[in-house]
Amino acid sequence: MKLEKAFDNILVVGLGLVGGSILKSLKYYSFGGDVYGLDSDHKIITEAHKLGLIKNQDTKITHELKKTLVIFSIPTLSIDKAIKELKKYSNLIDPLFTDTCSVKSSVLESLKKENPELISNFVLSHPIAGSEKNGLSSSLPNLFEKKLTIICPHEDNRDSDLKKVECFWNELKSLTKRLPPDYHDDIFAKTSHLPHVISFTLMDALFKNLGLKTFLYSGGSLEDYTRIASSDPLMWKDIMMANEKHIIESIEMFKDSLERLLFLIKDKDDKELLSFFSSVKKSRDSLL
Amino acid sequence: MKLEKAFDNILVVGLGLVGGSILKSLKYYSFGGDVYGLDSDHKIITEAHKLGLIKNQDTKITHELKKTLVIFSIPTLSIDKAIKELKKYSNLIDPLFTDTCSVKSSVLESLKKENPELISNFVLSHPIAGSEKNGLSSSLPNLFEKKLTIICPHEDNRDSDLKKVECFWNELKSLTKRLPPDYHDDIFAKTSHLPHVISFTLMDALFKNLGLKTFLYSGGSLEDYTRIASSDPLMWKDIMMANEKHIIESIEMFKDSLERLLFLIKDKDDKELLSFFSSVKKSRDSLL
Repeated sequence: MKLEKAFDNILVVGLGLVGGSILKSLKYYSFGGDVYGLDSDHKIITEAHKLGLIKNQDTKITHELKKTLVIFSIPTLSIDKAIKELKKYSNLIDPLFTDTCSVKSSVLESLKKENPELISNFVLSHPIAGSEKNGLSSSLPNLFEKKLTIICPHEDNRDSDLKKVECFWNELKSLTKRLPPDYHDDIFAKTSHLPHVISFTLMDALFKNLGLKTFLYSGGSLEDYTRIASSDPLMWKDIMMANEKHIIESIEMFKDSLERLLFLIKDKDDKELLSFFSSVKKSRDSLL
Repeated sequence: MKLEKAFDNILVVGLGLVGGSILKSLKYYSFGGDVYGLDSDHKIITEAHKLGLIKNQDTKITHELKKTLVIFSIPTLSIDKAIKELKKYSNLIDPLFTDTCSVKSSVLESLKKENPELISNFVLSHPIAGSEKNGLSSSLPNLFEKKLTIICPHEDNRDSDLKKVECFWNELKSLTKRLPPDYHDDIFAKTSHLPHVISFTLMDALFKNLGLKTFLYSGGSLEDYTRIASSDPLMWKDIMMANEKHIIESIEMFKDSLERLLFLIKDKDDKELLSFFSSVKKSRDSLL
């Protein structure tokens, strides 16, 4: 499927790192339709227009937009607010919606509660691509290249719509994979949200104890290890709130392993410590 | 100071990643003296000889070695065993000793207990350079380039000996910095041993829960985040045993921050969660 066959227009709501990277990718890969953008910070709209990324120069998109893909690229809990802004500033005829949020069940629940009429036209996506840097100025045309985007089908989706959204991500050179929303939220709690929790708390603990000496002797490796602790606070606050249940489970799961190792260290258990590290190394190496 | 003025010979005990990298660096930077090597695995000695890295082809270094720097590049708790091997296989006249272990107080304690006659000729060093890969075959001639080596002076050291060992590391293009042994062990418990503990336990928890699916959807970032969990198990078992007190303290310090964040998530405290992440980001960004 060519993307232009599926959509005449693309409208990105939220022009931060991910939204901005979508705009730059569409330009880079020469999308033949029209591209629009909205952001709660209206100055960013003007900026994106000046960069030649979007057609509108302010919030006024007064004419009717047909065959439009709307992409919400916003913090997870801002979906209602963003839909309100969208309704206020645009005139969409039969659009298809998607998003880039890191938690999927909460977006679905919010839609069911606040905007049930949109559900059947809403395809949930999550591009596994990002950076600790924020904002349009940090966005990249190749952010999604060779990365994976998870599509989370729900019971009201039409397969044709799922395919259109998959076509969109493929056009940005991203691979796609379908997973159920709750399974997505569970596995990403463990493999993404938990490492962020750990990185944030490690950085918190180190800075409280070592202050300006934190990175003094680490030769770059600790800077690298805590890199994701510089990620967008609002985005991560929302993820914690939206995926609370799975994140708490994943922290408890991690604490179990940490307590086990702490016990072995306190117990000075030479043999079991070696067995612990050997087994972990063996597990990790087996996955590579 | 030219390294050849300080030493006629260099003898590396332990030809793994770090020891092997020392040999390759000495060759790369054309050290003018003679280089020897010993390893508990005698095949490695032959291998290093075949690579043109050391003069001896087996454990037999029968002639007298004068003005020799001996570098113990071994797991932290193997120092006594390595000294025994050294005495068995070499004939050293008035040597100077150093090591590359990650914990310093325990090396000093072990010397005081088992080999007190060596203490005044033993300079403690710790090059902050490594890899999750092991062995001579993974060693690199530029492993120490632009990295930092910590020198931990103790009360029996002569300043002239400290300077000779600093000259050695500088010759391998490493920077040097002096820190007291216990201060070293405390700060590296926090900035190096703790991140390793976290990485090992995260990998343990994830693999136990997700098995072969652990890296399936993470797009490379989790592989990177857990990279150090593939580090040498014996080396890390020894570090845990040797720096037990400081590592336990650092784990408790980390657990405090983790419990705080867990509490905020469970409490659904929107405002405090945002403040937590913002403060951590601000701290980290202020250090860069």
